[in-house]
Amino acid sequence: MQIFKRLETDNYEQLIFCHDAASGLRAIICIHDTTLGPALGGLRIWNYRSEEEAVEDVLRLARGMTYKSAAAGLDLGGGKAVIIGDPKKIKSRELFHAFGRYVNTLHGRYITAQDMNTTPEDINWIHEVTDYVVGIPEKSGDPSPITAFGVFRGILAAVNEVFGSEDLNGRVVAVQGLGAVGYKLCQHLHEAGAEIIVTDIDPVRVQAAVQKFGAAAAAPEEIYSVACDVFAPCAMGAVINEQTVDELKCRIVAGSANNQLADGSFGDRLMEREILYVPDYVINSGGVINVYEELRGYNRDNAMEKAAAIYDSVAKIIEIAKRDNISTSRAADQMAEERIQAGKQK
Amino acid sequence: MQIFKRLETDNYEQLIFCHDAASGLRAIICIHDTTLGPALGGLRIWNYRSEEEAVEDVLRLARGMTYKSAAAGLDLGGGKAVIIGDPKKIKSRELFHAFGRYVNTLHGRYITAQDMNTTPEDINWIHEVTDYVVGIPEKSGDPSPITAFGVFRGILAAVNEVFGSEDLNGRVVAVQGLGAVGYKLCQHLHEAGAEIIVTDIDPVRVQAAVQKFGAAAAAPEEIYSVACDVFAPCAMGAVINEQTVDELKCRIVAGSANNQLADGSFGDRLMEREILYVPDYVINSGGVINVYEELRGYNRDNAMEKAAAIYDSVAKIIEIAKRDNISTSRAADQMAEERIQAGKQK
Repeated sequence: MQIFKRLETDNYEQLIFCHDAASGLRAIICIHDTTLGPALGGLRIWNYRSEEEAVEDVLRLARGMTYKSAAAGLDLGGGKAVIIGDPKKIKSRELFHAFGRYVNTLHGRYITAQDMNTTPEDINWIHEVTDYVVGIPEKSGDPSPITAFGVFRGILAAVNEVFGSEDLNGRVVAVQGLGAVGYKLCQHLHEAGAEIIVTDIDPVRVQAAVQKFGAAAAAPEEIYSVACDVFAPCAMGAVINEQTVDELKCRIVAGSANNQLADGSFGDRLMEREILYVPDYVINSGGVINVYEELRGYNRDNAMEKAAAIYDSVAKIIEIAKRDNISTSRAADQMAEERIQAGKQK
Repeated sequence: MQIFKRLETDNYEQLIFCHDAASGLRAIICIHDTTLGPALGGLRIWNYRSEEEAVEDVLRLARGMTYKSAAAGLDLGGGKAVIIGDPKKIKSRELFHAFGRYVNTLHGRYITAQDMNTTPEDINWIHEVTDYVVGIPEKSGDPSPITAFGVFRGILAAVNEVFGSEDLNGRVVAVQGLGAVGYKLCQHLHEAGAEIIVTDIDPVRVQAAVQKFGAAAAAPEEIYSVACDVFAPCAMGAVINEQTVDELKCRIVAGSANNQLADGSFGDRLMEREILYVPDYVINSGGVINVYEELRGYNRDNAMEKAAAIYDSVAKIIEIAKRDNISTSRAADQMAEERIQAGKQK
């Protein structure tokens, strides 16, 4: 793998290999762009099959954070970290201390957080050696209410665009996945008068949504083809793919899942089908908005207010997409890139 | 290339790829070990044929700095930096500013300095954006007097060991290379009463040494086989190799050149031939001693005093080599490693 070639292609700033013999730490920190502020992004632990795979993952994820924070209007750059190894075997306080010390050497240029296979306990261990970590349990706490609220606000903006009104009474929303965010999203939708169709692999959760929100239950494989106004993917990624894209019977795709499009071309396919896609990294930016607030002394009301503004970001992206006749996913990238470019001019 | 495998083999801490699109910077900073202090090591610019070659070079050089500073008794770790590109084409103030900004993000964990293809002007440019650079022309200035004095002191220690007295009167020293250090070494040797044989590819320099120090001139290819007490390599590396090792007619090899042994086994070959080898990175540590003083507010007398103590380091290495019946080059590594291990226990 030619590292500088990759760094040049998507204009990365830095890739940092960190090794600590005593704890067995093998970590890679990627700083994609710090034009708008410190590079913030979580720490993922994964048993990568190769070093190349780990490098590719951290590069891709760091760049994603740049776009997410830029589109959310935050004064943050994009970064990410990975630790190579089996999360069931390698975790120790010593390991997270070693990682935290490396984060600390960057003096806030990179700020870490929880991600796949890292827990609040791990974050606390990191926090014992560095202040450059967010998502501390006793500070901003559980981000899912903020994320769910942001998704709800993004749905309202899309509904307003498509139906000429924010009113959800009688609108049908199909929610895929009833995890912490999906479930709380149902609550907002229910309170706003929407009819809800839900699916989840856990029947207990489905049952709870049926009882609490009067939701209709669908089988996991049916959720793509149910007739609805909004399809809200709130579980796994790549759900808009070659198999599902023509099945959809919705007018809007808007949910909290990461990487909903199998690849960028499916943004164009949805556009061709006249289905309004709300870019995932914009509508689910409540999580990063929440930890951003933590950097400034956490206040939940401020975080909620900023998450409410996801409505405006979505509206702006729709406007750019219409103006330039491009897909909303391309419009979101463009908005993020324009903000970074403007930052560079300063 | 598997980076973590390499980092694990020789216990490296960090390898940092730095890219700056605006200036075209492609730099790699390697931090080998910071147990004893900040990683100090120069910046080299080279048109490497491949990224792998650049990585290998910066790794090797950074580790060398750890050993050099540890053996010199300095509170410094080892690091190094390389910029990939043709030094005749890529240099610009912008490039060195970009590099300096990256150095600055490490907040003193790495300290840079002049090295191959970097000039005092380049160092001044780096200094415009970071304080973590040494060898500033108006501070410690030209290091060659300190380096030459250190080499002279190391020769005295070796002569004392082999001949039972430091007295250089009538001792014959063959000096290969009359650059800034080699020439100044001749001056010390001359003042101490040694007979000098010199060689250099530049006849003007040879002529100067003949006139000033009453030196005898030898042809470049003859210098290995002249009868002498001390052979002092002060030019290129790898001069103790398969071709030369059996030609030597000296009792001591002690000079300022880097990497005098073609590989570690030639340390053993010299030992078999009962030629005392003074490890290059120990005897030529005057340069790093000089910039180390700069970190503490430069004082040339202090630097000279520390360079004088190279005598003691050499004496100690000889003692370890005799005690453990190993070559002096292995004894030097061992002394450095013991100091680092002791540092880790703290």
